[in-house]
Amino acid sequence: MSSNSTFFRVSRRALLSTFAALSALPTVLALAQNAAADDQPAQGDPLPSWNDTETKKAIVAFVDRVTKQSGPDFVPEDERIATFDNDGTLWAEQPMYSQLLFALDRVKVLAPQHPEWKTKEPFASLLRGDVRGALAGGEKSLMPIVAATHSGMNSVEFNQIVRDWVATAKHPVTKRLYTEMVYQPMLELVAYLRTNGFKNFIVSGGGIDFIRPWTERVYGIPPENVVGSSGKVKFEMPDSEPVLMRLPEIDFIDDGPGKPVGINEHIGRRPIAAFGNSDGDLQMLQWTKGAGGVRFALLVHHTDGEREWAYDRKSSVGRLDKALDAAQANGWTVVDMKSDWKSIFPFGNK
Amino acid sequence: MSSNSTFFRVSRRALLSTFAALSALPTVLALAQNAAADDQPAQGDPLPSWNDTETKKAIVAFVDRVTKQSGPDFVPEDERIATFDNDGTLWAEQPMYSQLLFALDRVKVLAPQHPEWKTKEPFASLLRGDVRGALAGGEKSLMPIVAATHSGMNSVEFNQIVRDWVATAKHPVTKRLYTEMVYQPMLELVAYLRTNGFKNFIVSGGGIDFIRPWTERVYGIPPENVVGSSGKVKFEMPDSEPVLMRLPEIDFIDDGPGKPVGINEHIGRRPIAAFGNSDGDLQMLQWTKGAGGVRFALLVHHTDGEREWAYDRKSSVGRLDKALDAAQANGWTVVDMKSDWKSIFPFGNK
Repeated sequence: MSSNSTFFRVSRRALLSTFAALSALPTVLALAQNAAADDQPAQGDPLPSWNDTETKKAIVAFVDRVTKQSGPDFVPEDERIATFDNDGTLWAEQPMYSQLLFALDRVKVLAPQHPEWKTKEPFASLLRGDVRGALAGGEKSLMPIVAATHSGMNSVEFNQIVRDWVATAKHPVTKRLYTEMVYQPMLELVAYLRTNGFKNFIVSGGGIDFIRPWTERVYGIPPENVVGSSGKVKFEMPDSEPVLMRLPEIDFIDDGPGKPVGINEHIGRRPIAAFGNSDGDLQMLQWTKGAGGVRFALLVHHTDGEREWAYDRKSSVGRLDKALDAAQANGWTVVDMKSDWKSIFPFGNK
Repeated sequence: MSSNSTFFRVSRRALLSTFAALSALPTVLALAQNAAADDQPAQGDPLPSWNDTETKKAIVAFVDRVTKQSGPDFVPEDERIATFDNDGTLWAEQPMYSQLLFALDRVKVLAPQHPEWKTKEPFASLLRGDVRGALAGGEKSLMPIVAATHSGMNSVEFNQIVRDWVATAKHPVTKRLYTEMVYQPMLELVAYLRTNGFKNFIVSGGGIDFIRPWTERVYGIPPENVVGSSGKVKFEMPDSEPVLMRLPEIDFIDDGPGKPVGINEHIGRRPIAAFGNSDGDLQMLQWTKGAGGVRFALLVHHTDGEREWAYDRKSSVGRLDKALDAAQANGWTVVDMKSDWKSIFPFGNK
């Protein structure tokens, strides 16, 4: 990926802003059913895709401690809040964030309505197929793309646009649907926690409305349990029909130090377990562990270049550097994908 | 109340901003238990404090329609979202919003640490007991009070401040705890909907962190199901101890056209039932009814000056004017407190 770093450095932070929604997948995926079939008590091994390493033992030991009613570390069900990052933690984020691909696809779809884009950057480069050139200006290049693709329509319309996209969009490397690019061990972990009375939330740097429509089917996490970045919206009633218009303005960036803020605003409780994979998750894990009591912080370390992608300290997508240092200094749990995960994706490996 | 109108006009809108938190009441109130004891199916009449009028029949008919699995109007449990305004809908808002009283009480508590307040408005008037004078400047007077009482501490500290206040603060007229000033018929309605698979949310113009700590005990609505106005907070780690510092800046006003925006941001689904009592709830009810399908919109009309307070079109607190017109024009359900409610408060009447 290194030769692409300029290209991909165009940033999370800039992309993390307007956005909204990809819900009911027309095809119910087998993996969605796996995740949704969660309400029975676990029979046998609840984490079959995890190798029997220290990582798995740490997860099970934590859950046992906080759910043992007579134990000193018991946490009532209401307070069993678990928060999960999405990109790189629950599904693949390489070679680039799915939401960026969504935005680029939308520019192509919208181009016929915007003849002026033929000579206007960053659209002109993009439409010539020069994605790297189009995004070379970083946030300044990306913001017009985000504005053009994530605002100007109402919330219901955007929801449908995202649903339509996610129903067919394929991962550029594996050619699988994005909703198949989820980590089987994490699906099992989400279900395992739910079975043990946890309330699972997604806390993503991605757009809240881009994620919500498909999380219930894919992860068994309902829309109201999704926290993410958002753009401003405005209530209007043209012709007595109420709509929420999406404005080309950032409202909230749910990344890095924004994650504890988003958690506080949306959930109003402090998580007892948090799961991430990059520096954007550092403060969420600090906030979770900082509460005292038995708390669990886990980082997914992408160490498997064969079956998935190997990247950490120098990656422009999903950089894991400071958070890895913090994990080592504080004894947080770090998943070594290569040795801890028996399988990666529901369909196998990359 | 009319002679007080200047005083009380100092605004919802201005107060609706910083804030945070009043949770575990030391004394578990009987009414909390009523609201919490909801998971059994209703036995006999689930709404015993409602007279057998058209209003009650409309509520029951709506619930029957959307929960009848074989019926044409069936709504799956996941989508049974109900949103409730708080002040004036679930608990009393006269003679002034509880959060305003909280702020005034805090000024008195903090005064010894602020000798400069003796000569600085609006604090000087307030400390002399001239509340009306202190607030005569409207938002300009109120904002320094809100900033002084709702920011400058971290989220955990504010939570404790609110808990302490709500544990002892008494309603100025009835001398009851604020958490007793809840409407018994509405407690029954909240529980009735929950029993029927609804997810209940509070969507309040009040501060989200001022409401969250006590809603689970009082209404059986957990903190993550509370939407409200909020101030900005900032993640910091002084001395390796993570905190969320409360800043003296408004982040979001969850009132009027802000309510559908807050619902969209926090819940990500459109309610199928919404309950309010003032013009601040108009857009929430429009947004709910505007979705098509069988939807329920209800306004509590304060018509009982004997047992509670009688006010509507000209009140500065909880004004019900445009929303009442909309209800009449659109056939929304309007509670006539005087004739529809058998009893008002769990302890009886005002």
